[in-house]
Amino acid sequence: MQVELPNTPGAFARVATAIGDAGGTLGPLDIIDIDNARVLRDVTVYAVDSNHLAQIQAEVQAIDGVAVVDVKDRVMAMHEHGKIEVVSKFPVRNRDELSLAYTPGVGRVCKTIAEDPEKVRELTIKANTVAIVSDGTAVLGLGNIGPKAAIPVMEGKAQLFKEFAGINGFPICLNIDPPNEDGTDPGIDQIVETVMRLEPVFGGINLEDIAAPRCFEVERRLQEALNIPVFHDDQHGTAVVTTAALRNALKLTNRRIEEVRIVISGAGAAGIAVAKMLMNAGAKHLVLCDRSGAIHKYGTYADASKQWIAENTNIDCTSGTLREVLKGADVFIGVSGPNLLNADDLRTMAEDPIVFALANPDPEVPFNEAQGVAAVYATGRSDYPNQINNVLCYPGIFRGALDAQASSITPNMTLAAADAIAGVIADDELSPTNIIPSVFNRSVAPLVASAVAAAAVADGVTPKH
Amino acid sequence: MQVELPNTPGAFARVATAIGDAGGTLGPLDIIDIDNARVLRDVTVYAVDSNHLAQIQAEVQAIDGVAVVDVKDRVMAMHEHGKIEVVSKFPVRNRDELSLAYTPGVGRVCKTIAEDPEKVRELTIKANTVAIVSDGTAVLGLGNIGPKAAIPVMEGKAQLFKEFAGINGFPICLNIDPPNEDGTDPGIDQIVETVMRLEPVFGGINLEDIAAPRCFEVERRLQEALNIPVFHDDQHGTAVVTTAALRNALKLTNRRIEEVRIVISGAGAAGIAVAKMLMNAGAKHLVLCDRSGAIHKYGTYADASKQWIAENTNIDCTSGTLREVLKGADVFIGVSGPNLLNADDLRTMAEDPIVFALANPDPEVPFNEAQGVAAVYATGRSDYPNQINNVLCYPGIFRGALDAQASSITPNMTLAAADAIAGVIADDELSPTNIIPSVFNRSVAPLVASAVAAAAVADGVTPKH
Repeated sequence: MQVELPNTPGAFARVATAIGDAGGTLGPLDIIDIDNARVLRDVTVYAVDSNHLAQIQAEVQAIDGVAVVDVKDRVMAMHEHGKIEVVSKFPVRNRDELSLAYTPGVGRVCKTIAEDPEKVRELTIKANTVAIVSDGTAVLGLGNIGPKAAIPVMEGKAQLFKEFAGINGFPICLNIDPPNEDGTDPGIDQIVETVMRLEPVFGGINLEDIAAPRCFEVERRLQEALNIPVFHDDQHGTAVVTTAALRNALKLTNRRIEEVRIVISGAGAAGIAVAKMLMNAGAKHLVLCDRSGAIHKYGTYADASKQWIAENTNIDCTSGTLREVLKGADVFIGVSGPNLLNADDLRTMAEDPIVFALANPDPEVPFNEAQGVAAVYATGRSDYPNQINNVLCYPGIFRGALDAQASSITPNMTLAAADAIAGVIADDELSPTNIIPSVFNRSVAPLVASAVAAAAVADGVTPKH
Repeated sequence: MQVELPNTPGAFARVATAIGDAGGTLGPLDIIDIDNARVLRDVTVYAVDSNHLAQIQAEVQAIDGVAVVDVKDRVMAMHEHGKIEVVSKFPVRNRDELSLAYTPGVGRVCKTIAEDPEKVRELTIKANTVAIVSDGTAVLGLGNIGPKAAIPVMEGKAQLFKEFAGINGFPICLNIDPPNEDGTDPGIDQIVETVMRLEPVFGGINLEDIAAPRCFEVERRLQEALNIPVFHDDQHGTAVVTTAALRNALKLTNRRIEEVRIVISGAGAAGIAVAKMLMNAGAKHLVLCDRSGAIHKYGTYADASKQWIAENTNIDCTSGTLREVLKGADVFIGVSGPNLLNADDLRTMAEDPIVFALANPDPEVPFNEAQGVAAVYATGRSDYPNQINNVLCYPGIFRGALDAQASSITPNMTLAAADAIAGVIADDELSPTNIIPSVFNRSVAPLVASAVAAAAVADGVTPKH
């Protein structure tokens, strides 16, 4: 906020008081211009949202002799013209540099690749570049906001790819037709064929924020068609980090994954991926609930992936609402919606219940309801302990897959990623508020990468030399 | 070349002599390691091609006591893992920065765009990002080498976009089916629909190295479908720079474009674009030749674009071979193949002939044949004066179109670009060896950009405010 005020003692104190009274927090200050009569100041104000900011602005404006000259929103300012850029690795300032990078030098490089297509990994950006592909149908908690509005999220992912793993991520946000009213979905073909055509320049495909069930078929078909890794982060990234957190939570409470009863709330893309990965990790007693309650083999499900869940989980064939099947469970994992359960519900679970309430921004179990009841409580939020965040997974998993030139990401590679993340917390550091490393722990991505690359080699999905 | 040699006087002189005798040129030298007996040196050697390099290496290796330890090809080394990267504009090192760039801050940015899609130009990379789209069917002089082998060229263009105009260029190299044997071409639909789907993140489309006639239909349909600029550089970039050079060559030889007779050799994408643009610039007497000679209205042409040329050029209905129609012409423009004409052919042209022989690397008229005959001689090569190079055009034309938020690139915008390029050479600097600015003249792109933006506004293809 740029504010003009009288150059008299106490003038700024009145501004600071107004900001504080309106619930704003004062950040860094700068003097922009000053003379005997007036001072022009840049004042950083932390507000809850834009309404709050407008309210603070009005309070400051109301002070006698004070004028709010300009208000710049820090988030919006940081997004101006995007958050990433494509740059050259070296300058092209003269004839010599131009002839190396472009004509005539480049011709020989092109010919080399034409003669041996495998050289594309050595001589172009392919080996270090990932497409971040979205149709904008399931962006954050915002839903189907379209490909343009999805770009800021994909740019953010590109930033994190670079920051944590040195990977070039590029946002591929696609105009795709919606599903037909009869349930058929031309969008599946459209995304699949578009990504297949784009493949030459990319070493990996990160699918992102694509709605279920479209995302399942898109991922399956692309995995089949391409010999580069295809990874739907909303499914498998969430599954990897959840599995890592569960490994440590079980260790802390002295339980084995094979023995615990796990209830998952939410049978969308993330819920199903978490279930499959936990089963891969050894889980046997697992019940998924959608809005109608527990999914079981006597139910009928239009959705093929739910049908798979019905046939392959819930071995005791429990039925009932989420609240009902939660009774006696050791682990609750929520990947659904806000405020579904309270402290009383958690008290019906087994002793020392593990509660991962991952709905964002409002978890399935509010923080205060879990306190004193859950033995371990984790969320997707950064302002509580134990944040389960995909940033812990995708930079490292792609770094490992690209380094190994893996043709796909196998279940063993994702399990290796989960174990590597869990292993970052040493046994003596493990505590109910420290089961998962911070997203800013710089050791996570390299450890994940080397574990994933090793698993790729073990699984035989790397080139034979 | 890393060379180990005895640490004795005259040892390196023997190496230098061997390199010189083999026709190599010595570049920068470094001492890497040295002791009493031996010296390890990095020796930069300029060679004609890789065979030549191998020959030089053998000569050096043959010297008694000298060993070539390693040879690194400078061009290949510069291409290792590509020439561009995607980077974040600011670091994301802590919670505060993450919450601005990614969740939760990014949600509000997404919502803003969802509510007002025009904001995508303010809040994402779109306004400054161009897709460099190729199917790899007509790459440099190499022909149909495929999308993977085309990547180094597209990366080079991306470097130059950044270097000269601050634009993010990203290589979109597409797997596209070849034309059918019956002449129909499914690839046209495939490229068009792929680019239409990719549009959200791009502010402009630079088509590149796509074979004719596919490129015509792809460009036409994309221009119709999209409201961002679509520009096939091989056509219009060449046309712009050629027109700029011709403006100055005519000025230098005191002729008017309306009056001169122009013969163009080559009726592919570039030749036809050059013809159309020169007609737009006022040219009236224009004959195009393909391999069968002059194109005229009594001929029959399978290709729709040649048919257009037959109906709209060659008003005197000249027929015959290139050599025959060249007689009496003022201007020769070659966008075809090597060594078609010699000094005697040029002597049949009008007085003070203007000769633009743009075939690369070997021009239609060799340098020595043109000397003393052509009043002005220009090529596509960097080692002769008057290099006609698209780099003079595309960074500035896209900068101008993006700055103006132009929905297309109109003929007036390309003419404005040509005039701006020509105008960089002041009248008193104009000479037979200086009709076009150097590709490294930093004033070109900004001058082109502002002329193009002004033409966009004049043509009404910018947003109404």
